Amino acid sequence: MKLPKVVEDLTNSFEKLPGIGRRSAQRLAFYLLRVPQRDLDFFENSLTNLKKLTKICTICHNLTDEEQCSICGDPKRDHNQVCVVESFQDVIALEKAGSYSGVYHVLHGSISPLNNVGPDELYIDTLVLRVKKGQISEVILATNTSLEGDATALYIQQALSGPPNGEVKQKIEISRIGRGLPTGVEIEYADDQTLMQALSTRKILE
Amino acid sequence: MKLPKVVEDLTNSFEKLPGIGRRSAQRLAFYLLRVPQRDLDFFENSLTNLKKLTKICTICHNLTDEEQCSICGDPKRDHNQVCVVESFQDVIALEKAGSYSGVYHVLHGSISPLNNVGPDELYIDTLVLRVKKGQISEVILATNTSLEGDATALYIQQALSGPPNGEVKQKIEISRIGRGLPTGVEIEYADDQTLMQALSTRKILE
Repeated sequence: MKLPKVVEDLTNSFEKLPGIGRRSAQRLAFYLLRVPQRDLDFFENSLTNLKKLTKICTICHNLTDEEQCSICGDPKRDHNQVCVVESFQDVIALEKAGSYSGVYHVLHGSISPLNNVGPDELYIDTLVLRVKKGQISEVILATNTSLEGDATALYIQQALSGPPNGEVKQKIEISRIGRGLPTGVEIEYADDQTLMQALSTRKILE
Repeated sequence: MKLPKVVEDLTNSFEKLPGIGRRSAQRLAFYLLRVPQRDLDFFENSLTNLKKLTKICTICHNLTDEEQCSICGDPKRDHNQVCVVESFQDVIALEKAGSYSGVYHVLHGSISPLNNVGPDELYIDTLVLRVKKGQISEVILATNTSLEGDATALYIQQALSGPPNGEVKQKIEISRIGRGLPTGVEIEYADDQTLMQALSTRKILE
């Protein structure tokens, strides 16, 4: 059966999205055939304006629709503390957790030689510049706990502390986000790396 | 963190789709922020034209971009045999199976009193008209094997054969799609209804 070209096209667009296979893509296209036209218009409008109406914060490179993101522009946040993350989504997750009151720095990825992403492709230079300006007293490295995330954290640590990039004059504290067992897991099913980390970060009870 | 409105809007549009939750919707919106603009334009264009460029076949009510669908317009198909299905997707599945060479009739749903769908909301009247015209010799009822699908099949069977709708003058064969065990299942896990059906449709081996 020959499907109308526009349905094929829409199916192809859905299929390119992560986690959506051919069948789901077709199901979504057929579903949209039945929704009211105004819902389609709304959807279409968001797609049209997606890149036009979004900006990257000039300070922390977080997603925003103005020059500065709502966090960098918030005087109630602690602007001496910077949490370095890989992506926008990481900011959302940390904000949702709700216990952090500092500001962020979004790298837009992690160092990954296999994917041709080196330090120069990430916003590491602007982090060094931010720290050099002198207002920052603590940098929390909250990149993922993957190989790439760990490597990125190590690279940033070196860039901010030792030579040859040791242009940061003031004394700053650099920390890596805490490692150990996540909440709600059974030790039986935890992986070796996590258990090793959890043992070495054990906390003496009083 | 306040997300740009357009990202929120796009997330909301994705979230309305079946099988996509809040988190996946947000993930898709963020993913689209990184795709080339021409991919976004293509996606958007398909949405714009989705309803404008699709039509319902005037004969069988299948999805098409012309007056008649490619199956109804195909002289090689057997136009005496009509397979009655609930949806476009059913036509696709049957065409993919590849063993049917007749034509279709798409009802656009099934009789479902709980959802306020009665026989009048479906393309049953046009099926009766098609049969009355006299060219059709067999009607295969391939509605789903659910309660609604079975009820719809029964309703159509009555509409096509007995009074009070017995306006169909010629002798036509009405069949229901075969019931039994699907291929590749273990009897241990088959449900009661299917096993009952499979026993009653058993085939004597020669």
